[in-house]
Amino acid sequence: MPIAVTILGNSSAKPTATGHPSAQVVNINEQLFLVDAGEGVQRQMARCGISPLKLRAVFISHLHGDHMFGLFPLLSTLGLYGRRTPLKIYAPRPFGEALEGFLRIFESDLPYTPEWVEVDTTKHQIIFENDTTEVWSLPLRHRIPTAGYLFKQKQPALNVTKYAIERYGLDMHQIVAAKRGEDITLSSGEVIANDLLTYRPYPPMSYAYCSDTNYSARLAKMVEGVDMLYHEATYCAAERKTAKMRGHSTTADAAKVAQMAGAGRLLIGHFSSRYKELEPLLAECREIFPASDIARERETFVIEEKRIKK
Amino acid sequence: MPIAVTILGNSSAKPTATGHPSAQVVNINEQLFLVDAGEGVQRQMARCGISPLKLRAVFISHLHGDHMFGLFPLLSTLGLYGRRTPLKIYAPRPFGEALEGFLRIFESDLPYTPEWVEVDTTKHQIIFENDTTEVWSLPLRHRIPTAGYLFKQKQPALNVTKYAIERYGLDMHQIVAAKRGEDITLSSGEVIANDLLTYRPYPPMSYAYCSDTNYSARLAKMVEGVDMLYHEATYCAAERKTAKMRGHSTTADAAKVAQMAGAGRLLIGHFSSRYKELEPLLAECREIFPASDIARERETFVIEEKRIKK
Repeated sequence: MPIAVTILGNSSAKPTATGHPSAQVVNINEQLFLVDAGEGVQRQMARCGISPLKLRAVFISHLHGDHMFGLFPLLSTLGLYGRRTPLKIYAPRPFGEALEGFLRIFESDLPYTPEWVEVDTTKHQIIFENDTTEVWSLPLRHRIPTAGYLFKQKQPALNVTKYAIERYGLDMHQIVAAKRGEDITLSSGEVIANDLLTYRPYPPMSYAYCSDTNYSARLAKMVEGVDMLYHEATYCAAERKTAKMRGHSTTADAAKVAQMAGAGRLLIGHFSSRYKELEPLLAECREIFPASDIARERETFVIEEKRIKK
Repeated sequence: MPIAVTILGNSSAKPTATGHPSAQVVNINEQLFLVDAGEGVQRQMARCGISPLKLRAVFISHLHGDHMFGLFPLLSTLGLYGRRTPLKIYAPRPFGEALEGFLRIFESDLPYTPEWVEVDTTKHQIIFENDTTEVWSLPLRHRIPTAGYLFKQKQPALNVTKYAIERYGLDMHQIVAAKRGEDITLSSGEVIANDLLTYRPYPPMSYAYCSDTNYSARLAKMVEGVDMLYHEATYCAAERKTAKMRGHSTTADAAKVAQMAGAGRLLIGHFSSRYKELEPLLAECREIFPASDIARERETFVIEEKRIKK
């Protein structure tokens, strides 16, 4: 099952006539997660054909407006659409205070409950987990408490090889037992080790969202081996000082993190409104890390599974 | 000096891929006023080439999200752009509470002060006034306290006719006195009544914004003789019951108010997302009030002054 990331916005704080602030939808194991929610996020979802009712949870990196002013309008719309199931929103403090004020003043009778889950932006730890998926928090270095998010597929269930089924004439019970990881005793009494019978259909995949942040070698370590990395690149390489001062990264910073992490590919975004042309920014990244791309709005970037045939 | 109204959004609450929620910019006597501020208002202003820094004041009709979720992002952007002059925001209670929470959580150090002016939605009275302009509140009938706004030019200063200047050989002092409305005593001792010397260059013009509201005959009286009336028409004429129940108007309601008020022209907006085609709604209005138009997004509607030549 691939991981697909749809970019809803890639601009930084200053609004432009063409761009939208940070927001993306991560589809992992057929679950939709909204990551950041800049102004206009619900309209961008509509333009990308993504139903807001399908959202499983929301992850907010930090409480700057360009990463969340679109969230409250979206919560209202989910009410209009009659959502009933609670919606978990993972965000740093003091998000709860903002949510409480919004509900009290604007939406005192929503048909569902938005539930705040506090994210500790100082810890790299699992904050969401189910049978197929893990989400880890990533401490980032910005002007206010900020977390990135690492989405990881769990190990897929074992498959039994056709070869083994025929070779040993396995029956249903034996196949199910083998899928559970057990060795199999044949009627002859012969015991076949599980690893001779089974294989993992595909290696688990991962995606990391890192915005907003200064360059961080520690971050590179935390996302080591990630298949796709989104890393902000607000400024061009020459603007190192401005980036450092503003709690942001340059193209070179983003590319270095991707390189150190051994990422499969890099997406850059959160561009300053001063850049009318993005190609030069991309070129700077590719000098250091060739597998770089611009996280263009309304484009979907897919991590194809490396299926193992047996 | 004409009055120009630029429509930034004409949709009701449910967002669509194409439309924006209520917002418009009223240019009266070269002062820009923002009237309602649905999500995306600042991007729509950019697309219409209107600088947010030029805003003189903001008028919010009521505290439903589709009329104000774009305001706080706009206030943040004005900070980024370095606005220094305070910005008055006219809105009903409990806007102050929402503003206070926004400033505390998101913008503790804006370089300017957004100042809330409470609007009493039960009273029809002057809430803004300067040398050239008056703004009156209009009590509307919605589900929550809601005010419309009536923008009125004041009487322009008197002009002295060329004829009088030549006929009586008026000097500068006499012309200035005549402009003040005084009668003029000639050197011969003859007294010339002011109305033989002067005229008003143009009749003052007016614009009324009425959204959201049930049909109201009282409202029609309050906007009597208005040159241009914006009146919501969320539903088609057949949906009278739904409109009444939801605190909204039909096309027929809007047209009737325009007719009773003797308005110069009618603009309809705040359309329900169920209507993909707006022409049928317009046709319903024109049956009752021919001078009706759809308040199309990013169109500017101008009330041309009826200049009096002398």
